[in-house]
Amino acid sequence: MQAVVKSAPLDGDAGTAIRDCPIPEPGPDEILIRVGAVAICGTDKHIYHWDPSIRDSVRPPRIYGHEFCGFVEQIGERAHRQNLQVGDYVSAEMHVVCGECQQCRSGNGHICARTRIYGLHEDGAFAEFVKVPASNVIPLDPSIPPRVGAFLDALGNAVHATQVVDLAGKSVAIMGFGPIGAMAAAIAEHCGASEIIIGDVTEHALETARRWAAGRKFANLHEFNVRAQPAAAIHKKVEEITDGGVDVVLEMSGAPSAINLGLKIVRMGGFLSLLGLPAGHAVTIDDYTRNVIFKGVTMQGIIGRRMYSTWHRMLALLHSGLDVEWVVQGTYDSLSDFPLGMASFDRHEALKVVLFPEGEEKAIQRVAASQGLARSA
Amino acid sequence: MQAVVKSAPLDGDAGTAIRDCPIPEPGPDEILIRVGAVAICGTDKHIYHWDPSIRDSVRPPRIYGHEFCGFVEQIGERAHRQNLQVGDYVSAEMHVVCGECQQCRSGNGHICARTRIYGLHEDGAFAEFVKVPASNVIPLDPSIPPRVGAFLDALGNAVHATQVVDLAGKSVAIMGFGPIGAMAAAIAEHCGASEIIIGDVTEHALETARRWAAGRKFANLHEFNVRAQPAAAIHKKVEEITDGGVDVVLEMSGAPSAINLGLKIVRMGGFLSLLGLPAGHAVTIDDYTRNVIFKGVTMQGIIGRRMYSTWHRMLALLHSGLDVEWVVQGTYDSLSDFPLGMASFDRHEALKVVLFPEGEEKAIQRVAASQGLARSA
Amino acid sequence: MQAVVKSAPLDGDAGTAIRDCPIPEPGPDEILIRVGAVAICGTDKHIYHWDPSIRDSVRPPRIYGHEFCGFVEQIGERAHRQNLQVGDYVSAEMHVVCGECQQCRSGNGHICARTRIYGLHEDGAFAEFVKVPASNVIPLDPSIPPRVGAFLDALGNAVHATQVVDLAGKSVAIMGFGPIGAMAAAIAEHCGASEIIIGDVTEHALETARRWAAGRKFANLHEFNVRAQPAAAIHKKVEEITDGGVDVVLEMSGAPSAINLGLKIVRMGGFLSLLGLPAGHAVTIDDYTRNVIFKGVTMQGIIGRRMYSTWHRMLALLHSGLDVEWVVQGTYDSLSDFPLGMASFDRHEALKVVLFPEGEEKAIQRVAASQGLARSA
Amino acid sequence: MQAVVKSAPLDGDAGTAIRDCPIPEPGPDEILIRVGAVAICGTDKHIYHWDPSIRDSVRPPRIYGHEFCGFVEQIGERAHRQNLQVGDYVSAEMHVVCGECQQCRSGNGHICARTRIYGLHEDGAFAEFVKVPASNVIPLDPSIPPRVGAFLDALGNAVHATQVVDLAGKSVAIMGFGPIGAMAAAIAEHCGASEIIIGDVTEHALETARRWAAGRKFANLHEFNVRAQPAAAIHKKVEEITDGGVDVVLEMSGAPSAINLGLKIVRMGGFLSLLGLPAGHAVTIDDYTRNVIFKGVTMQGIIGRRMYSTWHRMLALLHSGLDVEWVVQGTYDSLSDFPLGMASFDRHEALKVVLFPEGEEKAIQRVAASQGLARSA
Repeated sequence: MQAVVKSAPLDGDAGTAIRDCPIPEPGPDEILIRVGAVAICGTDKHIYHWDPSIRDSVRPPRIYGHEFCGFVEQIGERAHRQNLQVGDYVSAEMHVVCGECQQCRSGNGHICARTRIYGLHEDGAFAEFVKVPASNVIPLDPSIPPRVGAFLDALGNAVHATQVVDLAGKSVAIMGFGPIGAMAAAIAEHCGASEIIIGDVTEHALETARRWAAGRKFANLHEFNVRAQPAAAIHKKVEEITDGGVDVVLEMSGAPSAINLGLKIVRMGGFLSLLGLPAGHAVTIDDYTRNVIFKGVTMQGIIGRRMYSTWHRMLALLHSGLDVEWVVQGTYDSLSDFPLGMASFDRHEALKVVLFPEGEEKAIQRVAASQGLARSA
Repeated sequence: MQAVVKSAPLDGDAGTAIRDCPIPEPGPDEILIRVGAVAICGTDKHIYHWDPSIRDSVRPPRIYGHEFCGFVEQIGERAHRQNLQVGDYVSAEMHVVCGECQQCRSGNGHICARTRIYGLHEDGAFAEFVKVPASNVIPLDPSIPPRVGAFLDALGNAVHATQVVDLAGKSVAIMGFGPIGAMAAAIAEHCGASEIIIGDVTEHALETARRWAAGRKFANLHEFNVRAQPAAAIHKKVEEITDGGVDVVLEMSGAPSAINLGLKIVRMGGFLSLLGLPAGHAVTIDDYTRNVIFKGVTMQGIIGRRMYSTWHRMLALLHSGLDVEWVVQGTYDSLSDFPLGMASFDRHEALKVVLFPEGEEKAIQRVAASQGLARSA
Repeated sequence: MQAVVKSAPLDGDAGTAIRDCPIPEPGPDEILIRVGAVAICGTDKHIYHWDPSIRDSVRPPRIYGHEFCGFVEQIGERAHRQNLQVGDYVSAEMHVVCGECQQCRSGNGHICARTRIYGLHEDGAFAEFVKVPASNVIPLDPSIPPRVGAFLDALGNAVHATQVVDLAGKSVAIMGFGPIGAMAAAIAEHCGASEIIIGDVTEHALETARRWAAGRKFANLHEFNVRAQPAAAIHKKVEEITDGGVDVVLEMSGAPSAINLGLKIVRMGGFLSLLGLPAGHAVTIDDYTRNVIFKGVTMQGIIGRRMYSTWHRMLALLHSGLDVEWVVQGTYDSLSDFPLGMASFDRHEALKVVLFPEGEEKAIQRVAASQGLARSA
Repeated sequence: MQAVVKSAPLDGDAGTAIRDCPIPEPGPDEILIRVGAVAICGTDKHIYHWDPSIRDSVRPPRIYGHEFCGFVEQIGERAHRQNLQVGDYVSAEMHVVCGECQQCRSGNGHICARTRIYGLHEDGAFAEFVKVPASNVIPLDPSIPPRVGAFLDALGNAVHATQVVDLAGKSVAIMGFGPIGAMAAAIAEHCGASEIIIGDVTEHALETARRWAAGRKFANLHEFNVRAQPAAAIHKKVEEITDGGVDVVLEMSGAPSAINLGLKIVRMGGFLSLLGLPAGHAVTIDDYTRNVIFKGVTMQGIIGRRMYSTWHRMLALLHSGLDVEWVVQGTYDSLSDFPLGMASFDRHEALKVVLFPEGEEKAIQRVAASQGLARSA
């Protein structure tokens, strides 16, 4: 089968190859999935560029890809979960956890210390086929188009970040309008947020946000170019908009300056979901006494997706009308186009890039032919 | 001033008079409000009919009314809260609490055991003027039309019932599609509920629900005539719709059969907000072992509105686009029309009936002339 | 092996036999455990008496017992969990859940609708050996004596009931001072409850409570004979003790009158853990409007133990010094003494009765010989 | 009356005077309290040394003191709260809040942005008399000795830090064994913590911790000299003790190295209460990605005490037997001994220093003569 492989510890196309690989053989507890659509994630970009942050985790050769959807091709002998049949339309949680540690055994597998991530520690989904543990397979409703099914892993990050705090009637600031930030904005609007404040460093991103809000007829968007405007001015404006500070900050950028801006603009007693990963190791919190202690804020680190309540909530939100299809801004009908897709993603031309190994049309047909709704995540 | 008065302990018009009363004089900690719009509530109906349930609480003569909006007319000498000025557009929390008990002093004034309700224990807002404690006055944004400002107390009940549980992505069953149930449906849809299931005893109510959902283009409404269909059949249908049981039940009817139906259809580990008041004293829970214990459900009694976080959330939801104006199905431009309004409400012709002492047009003008936004509840 | 078997659908000794049975053979995912100590539970009593409530669940012949501890005897080929070795001192969660439903997959396996209970739906631990799924085995610290290890399932019920609400500094009423009520009292005292109020129908139980409190030098115990004293008098006394109502009610009796007394004495905004199972199907809530709605209470059905956070918390509480050994009031050194133990339990002579198939001395020796601490639940 | 006054913007005794001041006159909403006992707090030390951190908040001359208890001397005309009478034994919350902002009006007055602290922004309790708003007065039970009543403000900080997370069965690390850390340890042990880990920079503090644990017969204390031992070694030890990381960190030191150590040793998904104030403005979080995001931790800034649920919980914990009297390690029978007390506190000879304006004996007599229990906070 064709696969996109991190072939060597090198930056760019020199370290990435599209090559023929053997079709994986599913073990007794695994399911083999024919990939229908697969999306490029920020992590893939780090692998592609062989960023120092990622080198300890990836050992080439390694097949890329942890955001995808597809169709059940083969079911391991002990992998027969309820209802699941060959041909079914599915996605999968690509964090594979130990199941035995205290976190796993208390419903917190998303913070298992022994997590192995497919597409990073194990071969992933940028291929015609991928095998995953049966427990991690998530049946999808055919109403979800494959271009959306392709990036549920990423949407799950955004859902998880908004799952720890009820956004209805809250003012919400989103630091970083990349793919996850954009999805978080869609979720916040869908769930009744009263104000949405976007901070980003590019006009292009802010323009995308404005177009999205206009399309939704959402009147309460406020966007700030955090590079062009001084933090103090943004702070002042946000205090006016929110009558004293924003209720919830969704930190999706990882930039230390954005973390600090979030702490500055958040309300007394406010909440911060921290999801973005900084480039460096350390983050300096300015005015710790004033902004963390005296404000009595709550800060919550967000990693992965809750297994599997985040998946359940995500599918329910899509069913209730959450629209994130607009986040897909680049599609390619062949795995061979990976370099093109990565280049587009790399240049921030597209929030989300999706590749269809057999073409999008074929993926849509396979969805239509699948047995249909198996709802529980 | 003109006022609608429970004049005698009798049922119907015999016990209710529209008569001239002295304008109340605000004490040093009180504010006098010119009433712009006032709504009829189920409690008013109980007072009107001199229901046994209400007789201990009301001592005629007593001015009706605890759902209203209006304009600051006079401010007591110690009642100068931040920003509040004569002419301001306001509503008020009509539960007046002691401020000294453990509940009050821990941010739970809504369950103060010494609550006095204006329009019940004290004179209310079915009049040209009403006085209330300054602390209870809530400034309103001029974007809220007075016909909506008129029933924020009732909307607050619905908001409170949905404040204890995050509805985003949840399946929600609403037992009773009266005014509060209708508002709860609007809130659930606005906040991203995945399915909304309505149970009511009249086709008229279900038809109203259908029209509302169609208007919102909300595809996931399911309505049941709980009188016409057997509980077992409804149970089976709901299990299919929700894959095992509804996540959240909002019990707005008070009917013991509805409470039991709610417990039957709720998911294992589900949540029930209990707001409806039964006619009798006792409620028999069927299958207590199976439906309460073995299911591990949470049941939460809902009374009043949190002071004042519910008001804050309510205003934020309205600001974010929550639409409840459609609930108003009868308006009258004079207090003298109280008997007409009550008759219409009594016959379930209108979910909500609003009276404007000076006419709706004048109320709209006064809103426009008010100093504008003072946002914090 | 010897086993205590529900041999026929009859009441008492006529339907129970101590007989020779084959040693169970563990499947690939199961572990065979040599039983060190096994306790009699209220459910066993219902089975013994062939109560109508239990008849649908049990199909004779069936080995009794779901509270026990013992030693790993044989490990199925796929059942090798971390560290677990032959000879290890263990207990087990005897609710076996499907692992595939929404509850199971969101960390709420304790409310799986497809739960199978060993000792009820499957053969249990009143035998020399019992087999259980590997996932359900819980390693025990050798500091836990086998007479306590014998009833962790029951202790887990009490821990679960107190896990949903922080008891530190709270006034706590316990309805029913049977084995679970007694353990709940021990937990409440250990966790900093400010007042403990016990309601029971027998003087014997109240006397046991008094002796326990005296032994702990706990000054804030208040006990009521709920049969001898009128509810109104108890209510008045509790209001005095607690300055307005008790913070938390732990309903461990299942008696409808106790549920109603709990609702009466609970504080505005208070919390009720409902664990007791009533004899009949229906429970009538008196004064529903006043006691449920106007009080704004939260009621939470409690079933089983959270898998496995309750186990983890329970072991941590025992490690921190929680003393529940006093609850054991009858021990027998042979399975043959089951009829004696049951008779004693039946007559309320003993809160907890524990049987040791090989004698207590031998069980203690086996604990000492086990490899020792494997702490994570 | 005699009072201890920050007399000039200078370090040490040069900027502090014990002098005669007029007795404050209570306004209509205020209560005048005769001070029975008053404690020295870390903030007083900062004022005494005229630390840069405090200069913006204090304008000399200013009477010190915000931790005290005493006796009602005079009640303002509108200050007659339930039951409160001249002679009553009381303490007071010395954070005086606006009552009008969103925080105040949603039960979160402890994070009011307009808080004025008595003894800092207004005259305090290091005097024979102090006046405070009636709402802030807390009746005390005579069973609380005045040397403990003297520092309830500080105890309240510790209670608040432990109020956001249930400590029963949890492993708890306390960074900094100063007065608040010591009280936090007492609370943790009282509330059923399974392990208590203390980090401090002095052997003296660790020795005090050991003596306290020995006195309580608490076997699960682990103390670390965080200056003498490398963080990696402590981390390793804590992981062994706690099987993977501590559940809860109570950060009471403000030292950036302690904050980082706390993030290092906390469990995946653990909780950190952040109360300590760093000397500088910025705090650098090392390994932010690994320790905050990948661990999915929750960090909660702690300021003041919840009004007034923390007071209520604190009094209930004392009633249930919480012992913090041992924290008092220096007492003086005259306000004139302030310099001695401050010197002792400054040299870390005493965790808590209490002064009695009329002598301790007299204070004890006044407690005995007070009308007794008025329990609600």
